[in-house]
Amino acid sequence: MSVPRVAPVDFSHDRAEVARAIEQLMARELQDTKGPVADAIRYALRGEGKRLRAILVIAGYRAAGGTGDVSALAAAIEVVHAYSLVHDDLPCMDDDDMRRGRPTVHRVFGVPAATAAGMAMVPLAALSADAAAEAMGLAPAVRGNIVRTLMRASGAGGMIGGQLLDLEGEGLSLDLEQLERIHRCKTGALIEASIRIGGLAAGAAPAIEEAFGRYGASIGLAFQIADDVLDITATTNQLGKTAGKDVQFRKSTYPALLGIAGAEARADSLVREACLGLHELGVLTPELEFLAQFVVARQS
Amino acid sequence: MSVPRVAPVDFSHDRAEVARAIEQLMARELQDTKGPVADAIRYALRGEGKRLRAILVIAGYRAAGGTGDVSALAAAIEVVHAYSLVHDDLPCMDDDDMRRGRPTVHRVFGVPAATAAGMAMVPLAALSADAAAEAMGLAPAVRGNIVRTLMRASGAGGMIGGQLLDLEGEGLSLDLEQLERIHRCKTGALIEASIRIGGLAAGAAPAIEEAFGRYGASIGLAFQIADDVLDITATTNQLGKTAGKDVQFRKSTYPALLGIAGAEARADSLVREACLGLHELGVLTPELEFLAQFVVARQS
Repeated sequence: MSVPRVAPVDFSHDRAEVARAIEQLMARELQDTKGPVADAIRYALRGEGKRLRAILVIAGYRAAGGTGDVSALAAAIEVVHAYSLVHDDLPCMDDDDMRRGRPTVHRVFGVPAATAAGMAMVPLAALSADAAAEAMGLAPAVRGNIVRTLMRASGAGGMIGGQLLDLEGEGLSLDLEQLERIHRCKTGALIEASIRIGGLAAGAAPAIEEAFGRYGASIGLAFQIADDVLDITATTNQLGKTAGKDVQFRKSTYPALLGIAGAEARADSLVREACLGLHELGVLTPELEFLAQFVVARQS
Repeated sequence: MSVPRVAPVDFSHDRAEVARAIEQLMARELQDTKGPVADAIRYALRGEGKRLRAILVIAGYRAAGGTGDVSALAAAIEVVHAYSLVHDDLPCMDDDDMRRGRPTVHRVFGVPAATAAGMAMVPLAALSADAAAEAMGLAPAVRGNIVRTLMRASGAGGMIGGQLLDLEGEGLSLDLEQLERIHRCKTGALIEASIRIGGLAAGAAPAIEEAFGRYGASIGLAFQIADDVLDITATTNQLGKTAGKDVQFRKSTYPALLGIAGAEARADSLVREACLGLHELGVLTPELEFLAQFVVARQS
């Protein structure tokens, strides 16, 4: 793709901190819960992902001047992301057997436990975000704002609504506007919420938080366009999930509507737009610039 | 049953207020959401239920000295209850066709939309509770406490975990202790949370809130015992859902372990215990006394 490259940023330390925070979150919130629901939640949360949403919380927090440890809050966002994957993989949704190179949750624990785990992960996320915000010493009003932002992204108007629109669109010819609306909900809502929450935790001014939101929405859409492209160009092995499913299920995609080059150009333009918006407010850090480019340049 | 009767309390006005508040909640939170997830949520929320949990919020609020309008908060608790019914009825769970005299949500909207609606109703409940608490002018710290109490009851350690334990117990011989643990999670957690939340909204002292919690846990368990008895003694028509399912699925129940009379005696004793605890603190109102007796004396 044609976006000029910035120097790569190594987030491996942050990723390790998030993994540690996820373990602490499970130890705290699931300590009294026995049985397959808790086991399924643990399995879902221990998948080896990119942790993009958690990293966006951290990078947003730093860009807004935060200097504390925001990894526990970043872990709570990953709970929402993980629950969306459990839900998306269910037989009644995308019916996937593999995710991040492992059998999906319902393949290991069965559909009832996977469904229950998915449902239970929403309150888990809300409680974890609230507890993390409290541990950071944030005021109750800010804590409430963070939990609300997370819950709004998780519901019928965000991620979950988008997943169902996506499912219903299978086999239909969607136009670009319809497709964009689905992608903005399905993938964009939580990516947007992630960086917003980083900003909220750092006490960002409303104008900065809004700019973060626009950056998140743009790179979220670019992320999904890149996903559509990867579904065609990458192998199942590279992706850690089944490749070529979009064509198989006759899904409307950006490459189908714009061609691969056209889809890539649209993603690049969204990335530029995202960075420009932050640059104008003086909050475009090398981390956020790298992350914007990463979402379109990644290989899996 | 042998519990002495108190004068019946007419909650029809409160029930109408809750129905109104549920409509307002949907108008506000689902206004931008189109499609079958929103439709399924509306259908689930418009079922004609007893609204016991909402009434417990209201009665608890009044018993703790509250004088405002708590119906919007009560409506948010009903969202959690409705989501648990959607989830419980799914083919992968209890696989029920009828609920409150109507086809279940997945029978009308299909399994994907019903599953998505169930998942989306958790954030909806959190946001609605938070908005209701804000509209009542409650401090952010109290609002946070209310949302936490609701989320804790909704998760793996509460309702959802209990539903799965219940499902897994089918065909097994559970002892009384195991059965009680399932019922306390599955039904008790949200009933306990309801009256606690009423207390929190009225600014109840921690000792009162704790007593409310014990009352809720006791009547929640009594409610489930009465449910077990009704499954044997009532008809499908009376219940508005399929009767006799416990025997059909060889579920361990209180009547199976204690006999019908023994189960009824246990429920009555729990009701007395619940009322005594509040009486000792001077917060046993006629409303709460009636509700405790209602849970065991109801015919559906």
